[in-house]
Amino acid sequence: MSSNIGEQVKITIFGQSHSEAIGVVIDGLPPGEEIDLERVRAFMQRRAPGQNAYSTPRKEADEARILSGLFEGKTCGAPLCAMIENTNTRSKDYERDIPRPGHADYTAMEKYNGANDYRGGGHFSGRLTAPLCFAGAVCMQILERRGIYIGAHIAQIAEVKDVPFPPCDLERAVLQHTASASFPTLSEEAGEQMQAVIAAARAEGDSVGGIVEGAVIGLPVGVGEPMFDSMESCLSKLLFSIPAVKGVEFGAGFAVAGMRGSENNDAFYYDGEGLVRTKTNRHGGILGGISSGMPVLVRAAFKPTPSIAKEQDSISFLNAEACKLQVKGRHDPCIVPRAVPVVEAALALGVLDLLCVAGLAEREF
Amino acid sequence: MSSNIGEQVKITIFGQSHSEAIGVVIDGLPPGEEIDLERVRAFMQRRAPGQNAYSTPRKEADEARILSGLFEGKTCGAPLCAMIENTNTRSKDYERDIPRPGHADYTAMEKYNGANDYRGGGHFSGRLTAPLCFAGAVCMQILERRGIYIGAHIAQIAEVKDVPFPPCDLERAVLQHTASASFPTLSEEAGEQMQAVIAAARAEGDSVGGIVEGAVIGLPVGVGEPMFDSMESCLSKLLFSIPAVKGVEFGAGFAVAGMRGSENNDAFYYDGEGLVRTKTNRHGGILGGISSGMPVLVRAAFKPTPSIAKEQDSISFLNAEACKLQVKGRHDPCIVPRAVPVVEAALALGVLDLLCVAGLAEREF
Amino acid sequence: MSSNIGEQVKITIFGQSHSEAIGVVIDGLPPGEEIDLERVRAFMQRRAPGQNAYSTPRKEADEARILSGLFEGKTCGAPLCAMIENTNTRSKDYERDIPRPGHADYTAMEKYNGANDYRGGGHFSGRLTAPLCFAGAVCMQILERRGIYIGAHIAQIAEVKDVPFPPCDLERAVLQHTASASFPTLSEEAGEQMQAVIAAARAEGDSVGGIVEGAVIGLPVGVGEPMFDSMESCLSKLLFSIPAVKGVEFGAGFAVAGMRGSENNDAFYYDGEGLVRTKTNRHGGILGGISSGMPVLVRAAFKPTPSIAKEQDSISFLNAEACKLQVKGRHDPCIVPRAVPVVEAALALGVLDLLCVAGLAEREF
Amino acid sequence: MSSNIGEQVKITIFGQSHSEAIGVVIDGLPPGEEIDLERVRAFMQRRAPGQNAYSTPRKEADEARILSGLFEGKTCGAPLCAMIENTNTRSKDYERDIPRPGHADYTAMEKYNGANDYRGGGHFSGRLTAPLCFAGAVCMQILERRGIYIGAHIAQIAEVKDVPFPPCDLERAVLQHTASASFPTLSEEAGEQMQAVIAAARAEGDSVGGIVEGAVIGLPVGVGEPMFDSMESCLSKLLFSIPAVKGVEFGAGFAVAGMRGSENNDAFYYDGEGLVRTKTNRHGGILGGISSGMPVLVRAAFKPTPSIAKEQDSISFLNAEACKLQVKGRHDPCIVPRAVPVVEAALALGVLDLLCVAGLAEREF
Repeated sequence: MSSNIGEQVKITIFGQSHSEAIGVVIDGLPPGEEIDLERVRAFMQRRAPGQNAYSTPRKEADEARILSGLFEGKTCGAPLCAMIENTNTRSKDYERDIPRPGHADYTAMEKYNGANDYRGGGHFSGRLTAPLCFAGAVCMQILERRGIYIGAHIAQIAEVKDVPFPPCDLERAVLQHTASASFPTLSEEAGEQMQAVIAAARAEGDSVGGIVEGAVIGLPVGVGEPMFDSMESCLSKLLFSIPAVKGVEFGAGFAVAGMRGSENNDAFYYDGEGLVRTKTNRHGGILGGISSGMPVLVRAAFKPTPSIAKEQDSISFLNAEACKLQVKGRHDPCIVPRAVPVVEAALALGVLDLLCVAGLAEREF
Repeated sequence: MSSNIGEQVKITIFGQSHSEAIGVVIDGLPPGEEIDLERVRAFMQRRAPGQNAYSTPRKEADEARILSGLFEGKTCGAPLCAMIENTNTRSKDYERDIPRPGHADYTAMEKYNGANDYRGGGHFSGRLTAPLCFAGAVCMQILERRGIYIGAHIAQIAEVKDVPFPPCDLERAVLQHTASASFPTLSEEAGEQMQAVIAAARAEGDSVGGIVEGAVIGLPVGVGEPMFDSMESCLSKLLFSIPAVKGVEFGAGFAVAGMRGSENNDAFYYDGEGLVRTKTNRHGGILGGISSGMPVLVRAAFKPTPSIAKEQDSISFLNAEACKLQVKGRHDPCIVPRAVPVVEAALALGVLDLLCVAGLAEREF
Repeated sequence: MSSNIGEQVKITIFGQSHSEAIGVVIDGLPPGEEIDLERVRAFMQRRAPGQNAYSTPRKEADEARILSGLFEGKTCGAPLCAMIENTNTRSKDYERDIPRPGHADYTAMEKYNGANDYRGGGHFSGRLTAPLCFAGAVCMQILERRGIYIGAHIAQIAEVKDVPFPPCDLERAVLQHTASASFPTLSEEAGEQMQAVIAAARAEGDSVGGIVEGAVIGLPVGVGEPMFDSMESCLSKLLFSIPAVKGVEFGAGFAVAGMRGSENNDAFYYDGEGLVRTKTNRHGGILGGISSGMPVLVRAAFKPTPSIAKEQDSISFLNAEACKLQVKGRHDPCIVPRAVPVVEAALALGVLDLLCVAGLAEREF
Repeated sequence: MSSNIGEQVKITIFGQSHSEAIGVVIDGLPPGEEIDLERVRAFMQRRAPGQNAYSTPRKEADEARILSGLFEGKTCGAPLCAMIENTNTRSKDYERDIPRPGHADYTAMEKYNGANDYRGGGHFSGRLTAPLCFAGAVCMQILERRGIYIGAHIAQIAEVKDVPFPPCDLERAVLQHTASASFPTLSEEAGEQMQAVIAAARAEGDSVGGIVEGAVIGLPVGVGEPMFDSMESCLSKLLFSIPAVKGVEFGAGFAVAGMRGSENNDAFYYDGEGLVRTKTNRHGGILGGISSGMPVLVRAAFKPTPSIAKEQDSISFLNAEACKLQVKGRHDPCIVPRAVPVVEAALALGVLDLLCVAGLAEREF
């Protein structure tokens, strides 16, 4: 296990789906930062289960209790620890014998010699993204105080695509819109089609995957530490730590494969205020692993929820033979809508850490 | 800058395109491993420039000199350092005033307050992948001694696609084939078309991008340290450190967005020898961030070489105004063929490190 | 702040003296290890306050609640988190204006721009050694299962000295003796004198310092990763993280300064069973930063409790002038007796981590 | 092996006593810093062998060749690599069969399964402090530009003691004096006695140990990251990585054991310019792991050179029996004089790294 990440702003995630609690320790936050816990709660609600037709019926208050690190409402230099009690667990839904396809059941059992907590997926559960969101929400408030804003939307579910973020002129208002939307798309029509696609999958006892597009605006030039702590390296490491992510791309991403250099290169120009910008943004705000000042654009692909109601082929360890499996438990037919704030949180953690490492985290007033 | 990576097997890359030398220190290698330097040299030749029509005319012997870490031909516990002299540099081709689109010129200048070595791209040059290849070649020999093999091929250049690696039954012979091919594709026809596409781009003073598919076979179950040091997290961090990579995906990758769970889930079964395998391999050999024993499959998208002969729009810092730029220097119209061993090297570094961290690096005889 | 340490077995400490709770996350423990929580509690009681005449009257149950990481009583691969509620805090005893000599009040205020939690010393409080002891107690059980035992005793308080551990033939029984003693010395007489010295200091509103000697026996040859993760480097880093430690020495320690080489060198010999040992143990079980198989011997010097009842000179920030200070609060006249298990805990953390890094943590049955 | 250290300013040491070369990579240096290589060379000469009666006759030019990281004489953001060729090696002086008492021969052989490079002590040789000194000399120049100065002197050899640094009012001139002295003591008389003691030991085929006292002045308040990256933790980790160091203490160090709190506490006061200082400096410039603005004072104990001409008891692995050993090779009868710049270098590395981590490395003009 390796549940720590970060160089200056370091987080440690703990907990299993059915342990007493889950939580996070955030070390290295700039001191003296006021944290609005009501806004943190609101952010976490965007990820919380049990809110609508396309998410799991497991209801958790997801109330984070602050154990340390805040003093008089502000960060105080000491590590901030938040815990969330696990109250609504149904362990009997889970068993060890038959590994669920698409889950970590088999690999974790092998890795930990059968000692792993298999209930609800244990440490591999998507529930562990709740403390990640807590940490991300804290970091986002600190970033906003420096004029840096983060947002995300559903770019695709099954074959339905949303319109992308405007690559060069992405406004904060757009990010605020998707953050407050009940279904976070830019195109309302696309959002409705996506919900229909999810409902159809659910009706068939199946699930669907999708893509989340995230963005960071307001980032100064110079963030990112190549070679190995480039912006892409650090952000992808965080994004691939989110369960179900199988692909990450920045800017034009995989589409660069089909482009000519003359098409992919983004020409520099001076804007009206003498700032250096690029006319297009295929580089996704990152050149040579370092932020360019243009919006950072990133897309993460989420696989369809592996827990489906449909009968599947698997094996029984006890009988050492093939068997059929009907997954029980309460599961989302599509995790993508709830993954939107998780992507934002991961970006916030990575960006604040790299900003601090680059020595660019000083507040200006 | 952050030029170190790895937990147990740690590498440190140094050098700039036009500094006296470039090189790598590899710390934490298992002791007593014989290293065949002739094979290392052969591997590095696959990346070396000046070999054929589609690569840069800059010719470098790329001879690595071992400064430390080998004793009587074997790793001895001490860090292995290899240096490569920079002999064929033409610094006059480079200037600081006009940032080249698609390069790190502008972001590096801002980050390092104008102190960066801009000649040939400095530390951001693709030339820094030579020591990466050295380190990867060393790791590959150690992995092979444990039955773990790594390979890669060109999956796509422009719109031309190669056939993919067989996802479930990938044989070592296939990897050996692409490693020894003069143009590393599975389909000879696709390879010829790709070369034609590259030649056409070159003729127009332009460049093309592409995709490299890499694979790891023979990996035991249990490699990878979730959450944050999952296989995907660690390998993507390395791959995104390679200049020009803008996307990384594992297994079905971005295609999972369009799949149903019933389609994407890979069913477990016992093979004839009682080993657990999956019938399909959309998970790309990684479940919950941990190796499953199936082939690890990964794809990395490379952008078209940003240095093109065509005239481009840029700015002059000195004149603080827009200007035209004609990039000089010697450049590949397509870096993808030379990127194939670089992807292999990055995979080798990540896999050996994670194998050691997992305590699974003991040799069996 | 940097509240994380460890390479494979990584701990993260959180909490302030007067925050809601304090605690620790331990990541990377070998899976499947049964943890006897009753023994952990007994270990922590050795550090707990309010137990006798020479410790602070602040009484805390110091009951650790396990939030995650144990499943069916065993480590399960997921991070183990334990929290201890802060129930008996008297924040009104503390104020920010006048920095207490010998404390972190002034340096922390400067470092965190006045945002630090000054109540009870905040994150700098000796209370934070409670979660350290929890983590150490867990590690000690895992080490014992591998035949590795750790112990410590009071080597000195003020001018009173205990007899040292026998350097070559240290038996487990000796370690068990001091672990169970109400006052952990080898010589009962020395212990009584020490208690008298402490009582005298208390009576005068003053405090005394001392030295703790720790030992590790049963360690295999080969633990420690020179240069920078040598045994001495890693253990000293942990020991100097304990509040009040101002000196650390291994084996003959500072006495080597006055020795000849012929006196300090420990001659090798084969014991009756063909094992390599040394006739003396001035090297303290560590040669070249690597364990030699002889007992590891280390001594840590603790300064006298800075909080004393006697009036002291200090300054008032508000008035920007000199002033007198009478420290309130409940304090130990000597922390050394309670520091004994803390030293053991720090050694256990460092040794288990290095054992895992060296690949020597496999259990034998 | 673990040859990397540092969080922001990271160094990697490579090489063995008899490998082709030794060297260091320094990553994360502030960019744009002019490095006076002549001064670096002069600093390294203070450590270089073959200079006088009390050091080894092995003569090495110790000329560092810069491979990368400097551009137009300044740091450029890219890692700085320096190599030193090993030219004057006499490998035949060394053999594997009989481990030298006090050396790493036995532990390294066990750790690396006999694959270790035993010639001249391999990676464990004191020669590896040459690249450490190179790195330290570079860091010292960067620190000086920020008003931070580092120095050291021989505090003790055998029983002969030098006068200590003045703890509160240490001037830069004192540090410059010892840096330029041919024998670095404050008291000339003590220095002469020490040299006589060394000569006597040499005449008897023996060696002597000693203590080096180091100091850092001009450090701002707020450097150090408790708990685990406290000033003491980080500096001790570096100092214990120097071969032969067996004890480290800060400020009053082990003497605190015998002090009362009222004696050990350093009272705060405002100096004439309104700066907070302490009347005494038993805390050695570090409170709660954080720099207080007072001089940092540290002492490191060095064991007598284990290589002595006198016959010693050891074992023969081949014969599996006891034997006599007469160590050949060229060795210092006392390494302490040459260790003085090594201690300075280690302090410089640790201080610059922590200064950067604390965000206090910005230059002021």
